[in-house]
Parts: sequence; C-alpha cells; structure tokens
Amino acid sequence: MATVKLWTDDEVSADARIRAVFDDIRSTRKSDFVNNFWRALANQPALLERTWSSVKEVMIQPGALDPLTKELIYIAVSTINSCSYCVHSHTAAARAKGLTDQQYTEFLAVVGMAAETNALATGLQIPVDSEYSLE
Amino acid sequence: MATVKLWTDDEVSADARIRAVFDDIRSTRKSDFVNNFWRALANQPALLERTWSSVKEVMIQPGALDPLTKELIYIAVSTINSCSYCVHSHTAAARAKGLTDQQYTEFLAVVGMAAETNALATGLQIPVDSEYSLE
Amino acid sequence: MATVKLWTDDEVSADARIRAVFDDIRSTRKSDFVNNFWRALANQPALLERTWSSVKEVMIQPGALDPLTKELIYIAVSTINSCSYCVHSHTAAARAKGLTDQQYTEFLAVVGMAAETNALATGLQIPVDSEYSLE
Amino acid sequence: MATVKLWTDDEVSADARIRAVFDDIRSTRKSDFVNNFWRALANQPALLERTWSSVKEVMIQPGALDPLTKELIYIAVSTINSCSYCVHSHTAAARAKGLTDQQYTEFLAVVGMAAETNALATGLQIPVDSEYSLE
Amino acid sequence: MATVKLWTDDEVSADARIRAVFDDIRSTRKSDFVNNFWRALANQPALLERTWSSVKEVMIQPGALDPLTKELIYIAVSTINSCSYCVHSHTAAARAKGLTDQQYTEFLAVVGMAAETNALATGLQIPVDSEYSLE
Amino acid sequence: MATVKLWTDDEVSADARIRAVFDDIRSTRKSDFVNNFWRALANQPALLERTWSSVKEVMIQPGALDPLTKELIYIAVSTINSCSYCVHSHTAAARAKGLTDQQYTEFLAVVGMAAETNALATGLQIPVDSEYSLE
Repeated sequence: MATVKLWTDDEVSADARIRAVFDDIRSTRKSDFVNNFWRALANQPALLERTWSSVKEVMIQPGALDPLTKELIYIAVSTINSCSYCVHSHTAAARAKGLTDQQYTEFLAVVGMAAETNALATGLQIPVDSEYSLE
Repeated sequence: MATVKLWTDDEVSADARIRAVFDDIRSTRKSDFVNNFWRALANQPALLERTWSSVKEVMIQPGALDPLTKELIYIAVSTINSCSYCVHSHTAAARAKGLTDQQYTEFLAVVGMAAETNALATGLQIPVDSEYSLE
Repeated sequence: MATVKLWTDDEVSADARIRAVFDDIRSTRKSDFVNNFWRALANQPALLERTWSSVKEVMIQPGALDPLTKELIYIAVSTINSCSYCVHSHTAAARAKGLTDQQYTEFLAVVGMAAETNALATGLQIPVDSEYSLE
Repeated sequence: MATVKLWTDDEVSADARIRAVFDDIRSTRKSDFVNNFWRALANQPALLERTWSSVKEVMIQPGALDPLTKELIYIAVSTINSCSYCVHSHTAAARAKGLTDQQYTEFLAVVGMAAETNALATGLQIPVDSEYSLE
Repeated sequence: MATVKLWTDDEVSADARIRAVFDDIRSTRKSDFVNNFWRALANQPALLERTWSSVKEVMIQPGALDPLTKELIYIAVSTINSCSYCVHSHTAAARAKGLTDQQYTEFLAVVGMAAETNALATGLQIPVDSEYSLE
Repeated sequence: MATVKLWTDDEVSADARIRAVFDDIRSTRKSDFVNNFWRALANQPALLERTWSSVKEVMIQPGALDPLTKELIYIAVSTINSCSYCVHSHTAAARAKGLTDQQYTEFLAVVGMAAETNALATGLQIPVDSEYSLE
C-alpha cells in the first residue's frame, strides 16, 4: 500500500493540470499505460510536473548515451538503493528497449562485482592513488 | 590511510604467489601501473586471486555489454555505495576507455535522477504495477 | 512475515516485564494501539526497554525541535535506508501530528533533491570548501 | 580531488551561460561565495542550470516548511547517504539559518535513533500494521 | 514476483549444467531444499556457477571464523543493505547453525547501535584519530 | 574537519558532567586514550551520556556473543554504511581484541560476498521462500 492514494484515470480526467501531464506521458511513450509512480505523484502537481519534465529531458531526449545504457545505469542505482518499485519498472523498461538475456546476465554480474569490491575498498579504507588526480 | 599495509613492488617481487597475480594484472591491462586496491588485497592471497579472477571474467572478458557501459554501471553502483576509492578508479578507467564529456554529463544526470526518483518511490511506498509481472 | 513471533495482547499480559513497557507506551501515547515494532521487540526484553526509553527521550520529550519536524527527519532517514516499515509508521505518526498535504509535498521534494545532489557530489568527488571549516 | 576541474571565477566570467547561473546564485543568496559544488557542475551547463533551478524552487522558494526544517531534512538524507560534502555544506547552511546547539543536538539524536530503529525493523522484517493503510 | 522465472526441479533436471550445480548444493548442504536465490540464478549459468563456487569457498569451507559468526556478519550486511530476501534466508541459516535467542538479541543490539553511531560519526564528520594509523 | 569542535583534555577537565563520562570511558577501557568520537559528542552532554551508556551495555558487558564477534558485526555495518571513522576505530578495536590476519581475511570475504549476493537478490527481486516462514 502507498502512503497516498493512487489516482484513477477518472480522477485524472477531472483535473486539467494532472491530465495535461498524463496526456504528455502517454503521447511521449506512445502507450496508454501510466504506471503507479505517476498516479502517486498526481497528489503533488508541482512535483509531478517537475519530475516528469526531468525524466523526459534526462531519460528520453536523445543524447550521447543510448536509451538502454541509461536504463541499465538507472537499475544499478535502484538496486543499490534497494528500491523495489524502481527495479521492477526499469527492468521492464530495459526489456522493452531490447535488453537481451545475455546483456542482463552481464549487467547483474557487474552490479554484484561492484558491490563486492566497493565493500572491500571501504572495509580496507584504501587511499586513492595519486595517479587518479587530474593535475 | 588503509587498515592494512600496501605492498610495494619489492615486497610483491619477493612473494611468488602475489607476484603471479600482479604479473597477470600488468599483462592483461598492458600497463605497469598497479593501483592500491590490489596492493591492499596482497595481504590476503586467496581473496586477491579470487577477486582478480572475477574482475577479469566480469569486467574485461568480451561479452554482450561493451567495456565502457560496464564501467558506467560500476561507477553508478560505487556512487550510491559512497565508495570514494571506487568512484575515482573507475572514472579514470572509463576515461581511458573513451568516455566523452557529453557522455559523462548524461551519466551523472541519470544517476542523480535515479537517486531522486528512488527516494520518491520509497518515500511514497508505491506498489509495483501488476503489468510488470512476468506471468 | 517477521523473523520472530509478534506478541499478542494476551501474551503481553502474561509477562510482567513486557506488560510494563506496553502499559507505558499506551499511557504515553494516549492510545490503545501498539504497533508491530514493539510486538516484535517483546521477544528481547532488555532491547525493548532500552529502545522504548530512548524513543521516549528523543522523539516524545519536549525540546528545541517540534514533534512534527522530528517525524520528518525520521522519515527522511527511513526513506534513504529503504525501511518500508519505518516509512509507513512514521508517515502515519507525522499525519497524526498535523502534517498537511502541502508540507508533505515539500518534504518529498527536499528528500528527492537531497538524494539527487548527494549522488552528484559523490559522483564528482567534490572537495569540501575551506570556508566550511570551523577554524 | 574532484573527478573534474573546479571552475575559477575567471573561467566563469569568460563563459556567458555559466556566468548567468553564478550571477543568479550570488544574487539569490546575497553572498559572493559560490561553493565548489557549483564550480564542479560548471563543466556540465545543462545539468548546472537544471540543478540550480530545482534547488531554488525546492530549497529557497518560501513554502509550507520553514528553511531551517528543509536544511535538517537535507542533512539527514546526506548523512545516511554518507555524502561528506553535503553534510558539511548544509550544516553550514543550517547554522547560517539560525540552527542552535540545542536543536543540532536533538537533530543528531533523532537521526541516530532513526538509523538504529531502521536496522531493528529491517533485521526483524516486521510486517506493516494494517492500521497504517489509507483505506 | 521476481524479474526472471524461478526454475522448477523439472526444468533443472532437463539441463545438465544447471543440474550439476543444484546437485552440488544439495549434497554440500545435505538437504533437498534449494531456495529461490539459486532458482533465479539458474537463468544465468555462468553467474550461477561462479556465485555458488564463491559461496562454498567463503561461507562453507572451514576456516578461522566459525560458521555462525559468518552468518551473523552476513545478516548484518544484508540488514544495512535492506535486502529482505537475504535477511530471511540467512537468519534461517543462522538458526539452523544454532543461533540462540540470547545471541540473536545481542546481535540485533550491536547492529542497531552500530547504525546509530555510524550516523553520529558521519553527521559530525569526525576526523580519524592518528592513533589508528598503522605507522 | 568535524562540524563541531573536538574537546581537549583541558576542556573536559573543566566540565564536571563531561569529565565524569570521560573518566568512566578511561576506567572501563583501562586506557588513557579517548578517541575523537567522544570528544565530538562532548558538545552534547545528554547525547554523550546516553550513547556511552548504550555502548557499555551493548559492546562491553559480557553476554552470549564474544567481544571480537561483536566488533566484526560492528565493522560489517560500518562498511556498508560507508562510515570511514567507524571502520577505522572498530578495526583497531578488533585487533586489540585479538583479530588474526586469517580471521580478517575471512571477514572481508564474507562482507564482500554478502554485498554481492545482496545486489543479485535485490536486482532479481527474488521472492522469500515460504520455507523461511516461522509458522
């Protein structure tokens, strides 16, 4: 259960400000499905608008990183932050963008190995090599 | 300062087991530089061998994800785990593998946005949509 | 499911040491409802007593921060620690202490923004400005 | 050391896009001091602009939470995320906004207690009480 | 729900590579029960083999730390990482290895206190004493 | 640098309430050395007293877990929380309590493996086996 109500399509339709964001989500993604994340943020119009605007700019607008790579970076962050919702929604998004089983396996191996070596480096308090300095 | 001593090249040379791993690191990476992470793990030969073997398999062996993408996933994990050493060493590695300024900017934007929306999804305790189920 | 049994009111009543804590929780909070957190800690009497005593001193005793501000700080910590139980119980507590929708929206925005800029500062390994030194 | 160069005032002055943001930071905060966070983000103009715009909206614009409360929420998140830079910069900001020693002590006590009880609730995997449901 | 299918015993039996790992898990643990963690990793044979091999070496092979101590260290890590699955599976494993109620209570108290004092030390940004240096 | 001043022995001597705690730390630990953690908490007398009282009860009072095991659990938590100060101080404490190189190596291996498998379990969102239920 969420700490706020999740807006139904009927409730969204009755509020012009929220409906405008939902319409843009649907047309941008070319899909009628709007997931619970946005139905929860609908309780906070300003936060909903700012978050969707940032997601569009950061995740959807074409750039120097391809969309699948962005999704993998996103899932890596969500996994370490233990955000169950985000792992589910962005693993689904990655699959929709073509993630293969082999890529997913390698992704999981990298995330696991990074978490392991992070723990070793922090546990041993290893000092940063001067070779990594920009100067 | 580390919680263990960092092995110098002279100390490594005097120990056949450790030297074998360092030689492999140098020849695999085609570089004489061996960073402090391995100089600290040299205190634990079995852990050193197992960790290097996994890093070779996961990060270096060619696969379905390109090496730069793996580094970005690695830095994302290290950032959220707040592992200063790992952020430095793998940002340097990513640059050595061709990371451009534009890619780095987009990477940081994705990591920041993921951290923000993770916090929103967890703060609101949003339930996972049934649409994400495999069945 | 919990890793320990949750004590029912009948079980609590049959144990004088546990009952004393539960009685104090009920009279301090002026409510008959005792949530599962305490029903789980009832398995560990010394830990139950020490934890309740600290919660009373830190969260309930009047001080320089008002009770609602304390709850918001608590939810912020719980969100970043991804403690689902704690987010739920303290969001309910904050509402009982008067949290408005507008305050909740602003709270979520601050938590999200802090998480985002934390990731940027750690990802960029920004050095602390000397201006922040106490000397 | 940072993973990017920190822009000096001379470098900022020579770039109209970056200078516009720095000018706004200075006039909004009524202070000539611009901390390293922004000097690092200056390498990524679009991220700099979006981040400053969000910080202004979320942290500075008057709302239902007072500025000091927002700073405390921010420090709580930064502490749990172990962001050294952010703890320093926002503790300084909280003091500039009037944080007293007594408030700081109580803040630390709440953060510590929340971290402790988060660990207990997660360690015991306590199920969320149905009483916390919105329905 | 998992992001991948969980392999049934019939599916495992039909794949020689996966079956070999499951057979080894069963004979090493002297139990027919194979938990979901391995049924999920079965989708990634190389990751399954490497992970099981490491778990055997690290957790099961006799060494200088007794098996119960290793489980407690494991649960501590899993609690702070908020890994619900891992807390459940390793608390069950610790009990199977003889964890008493009194030990469990003390374990929880140490984890809670460590989390609390971690937050205080990070919140106060306490500098490491020179006495902890190895030199 | 800390966010608060660190109390010198002279300052401690001049304040009866703080001096009482420092005297107890010194006599309990049978050592004249008092580390910076307590010198920072001296700014908050009530928090200092409560924290020292809890540390004495949880970490020092004899119980069902031996002192070295408690230190290892403490370091595991501190590593995952990325608390540099706490990793240093408690690794020193563990060594003072007899931690051998072999035990330290195995400890690091368990922490690393737990972090890795936590990431895999969370990344794959593996459901908890019904076999782990208490009923």
